[in-house]
Amino acid sequence: MRYLLAPDSFKEAASAHAVAEAMRRGVLAGDPDAECRIMPLSDGGEGLTAALVEATGGELRSAHVHDALGRPITAQYGFLGDDGSARSCNDGPNTRTAVIELAAASGIERISPADRDPLTASTFGTGELIRAAVNAGANRIVLGLGGSATTDGGTGLACALGYRFLDDHDCELPFGGGALHCLARIDSTDIHREMRDIPIVLACDVTNPLTGPNGAAAVFAPQKGANPQQVALLDAGLRRLADAIKTLNGRGIAQQPGSGAAGGTGGGMFGLFNASMRPGIELVLDLLHACEACAWADIVITGEGAIDAQTPYGKVPSGIAKMAKSQGKPVIAIGGTVTRNPRTMADLRKTGIVATFGITPGPATLPQLLADTERNMEGTCTAIAGLLRNMA
Amino acid sequence: MRYLLAPDSFKEAASAHAVAEAMRRGVLAGDPDAECRIMPLSDGGEGLTAALVEATGGELRSAHVHDALGRPITAQYGFLGDDGSARSCNDGPNTRTAVIELAAASGIERISPADRDPLTASTFGTGELIRAAVNAGANRIVLGLGGSATTDGGTGLACALGYRFLDDHDCELPFGGGALHCLARIDSTDIHREMRDIPIVLACDVTNPLTGPNGAAAVFAPQKGANPQQVALLDAGLRRLADAIKTLNGRGIAQQPGSGAAGGTGGGMFGLFNASMRPGIELVLDLLHACEACAWADIVITGEGAIDAQTPYGKVPSGIAKMAKSQGKPVIAIGGTVTRNPRTMADLRKTGIVATFGITPGPATLPQLLADTERNMEGTCTAIAGLLRNMA
Repeated sequence: MRYLLAPDSFKEAASAHAVAEAMRRGVLAGDPDAECRIMPLSDGGEGLTAALVEATGGELRSAHVHDALGRPITAQYGFLGDDGSARSCNDGPNTRTAVIELAAASGIERISPADRDPLTASTFGTGELIRAAVNAGANRIVLGLGGSATTDGGTGLACALGYRFLDDHDCELPFGGGALHCLARIDSTDIHREMRDIPIVLACDVTNPLTGPNGAAAVFAPQKGANPQQVALLDAGLRRLADAIKTLNGRGIAQQPGSGAAGGTGGGMFGLFNASMRPGIELVLDLLHACEACAWADIVITGEGAIDAQTPYGKVPSGIAKMAKSQGKPVIAIGGTVTRNPRTMADLRKTGIVATFGITPGPATLPQLLADTERNMEGTCTAIAGLLRNMA
Repeated sequence: MRYLLAPDSFKEAASAHAVAEAMRRGVLAGDPDAECRIMPLSDGGEGLTAALVEATGGELRSAHVHDALGRPITAQYGFLGDDGSARSCNDGPNTRTAVIELAAASGIERISPADRDPLTASTFGTGELIRAAVNAGANRIVLGLGGSATTDGGTGLACALGYRFLDDHDCELPFGGGALHCLARIDSTDIHREMRDIPIVLACDVTNPLTGPNGAAAVFAPQKGANPQQVALLDAGLRRLADAIKTLNGRGIAQQPGSGAAGGTGGGMFGLFNASMRPGIELVLDLLHACEACAWADIVITGEGAIDAQTPYGKVPSGIAKMAKSQGKPVIAIGGTVTRNPRTMADLRKTGIVATFGITPGPATLPQLLADTERNMEGTCTAIAGLLRNMA
């Protein structure tokens, strides 16, 4: 029996790699003759870089950049290894793909709640990371959106790569979405063609437009500390940005789905760079050649910390399940917490998940369970493999 | 796929029947084409009567008897139905089997801790239940030992059926093991041949001898409230009982394995009646024709409240697993709490349990889990059946 072990990370408990290794130990304990391949996954959010670098035998790099408030930090990004770099998007053999998480430099987790400032927070540091990656040889960027502290429409990022955002006195605006309502025009004379044309694939599950009631400011800025007046100011700034981009190059981004992602970074990337957007899990599965791994396997075991009502929508388990289902391969989902809601279970089955198991061995608190995640995963996979070995 | 659903009760949470029904609902949700048979089990302890009566379509009866302290109570016993009565022990078609739990009348759970009296507690009420069953037509008795409040060597039970236990003035002894050290002889003139000869099968997993350091008094009386002096008195009484039985009919019971069960009731039954003893789960499986049900099934799902280090030894899951294993049928054990100890898991596999699953969906307290047992069992069985349906 061939097992493809393809979990997400278990948040606060274990990395996707650690979970996959625990699955492997468990499966082999239950069926010593099993063949296992591990494929730690990410849905494009937290852990994207680590998952892709680990899975492809790539390498992590770090660079001195700035956080969303402009404080100096060291942030990590990665280069995909040979395993995962070129083939997936029909690129040539010379493609060197760097993977960057917006949250690595511009993330909200880096900033204590008391310090958060939705008006000045900037994506500049992420632009610095992209520049570092390109200087190190990258000719394609995978950028995971999500977890940002910013609502600057990606203008900070664009600044770091050479764009200039000017007021009607031709003075550069200060950083952050709070100044964008003063934007008069965008100057692109300093940006290198290389930076402007490099393919950037945005990993993102958000489909919100840039502006308006479903836009970046209205929907996401409150989580980043904005009050209603600040939301209105930020939304006006993003409208101004959309207008300025339209004037610069004719691109209309204000209502483009996904342009509202990461405080409008989606929109800025669409308008100012050679960017495209894909659902995170699809992009990851593509980069890791999950299709081939599914074809090899008899069964897929996936998992995430909580298998719940969100799982059928853009999460790792449903993503891999849809791919496996198209090949007729059954998928088991294992969660630290699992729903027993009949409707959700039915939705999960539709994605291709034929069975959902919890790993919890009995009464326990969340901290206990977080600490025992790998051991409990191992035991559960032993049971599954022991069962399938005896049913074959 | 044919499922035999054969759980024990989940203590404090759900009866074996309720667990089996939850299993069936779960299996059918995961695989609407599955065929299910339920076979609620008992290891011969608490729940024996209910399990056997339910499983065979028998009937419950009640009788007015006395508890271990002589207080009037109503206690239940059962008659096996046609399904399970005759065939299993090569008896004729006219066998009418009654099933009685010693604990029903003479159990320690009936007596509040403050009222417990290890010296006077008596099995008289169990003898009354046997008499009621025989008067109602029983010609075979299955008696589940375990849970007794007594250390009277079964003398109370024997009294209720016509034996007399006399001191050296030929006066009848008072009830309870505390008076047995004054036993001079046993008078059997009043016991009906019918009572003396009726086959009594003792369901029991205890192998302790009647007397000595591993005997009924030394090992079990302290749990029933006896202090060291009382233990010594009770042990002397049981020795006296063994001597008196030897004098009466030549039977030597003092060191017979199992004679120490239920405060020496095992020994009294061996010495004074037509009694034999079998491990509870074996007897139950035999009475329920589990062998035929296993032959029918493709897979067996069993379970108990806690799958732990005790499970491989005389418990329901290992009992049904051994039977299924002999027929090459895989067994899944499901527990409210499951061990992940590698050694125990290996021991479980040896009994024929190929996989052990917990039902707990996430962090939860014991009271929560007890309340959600049936729902969680259902969800777990849905996962198992969904998996197997897709692997077939």
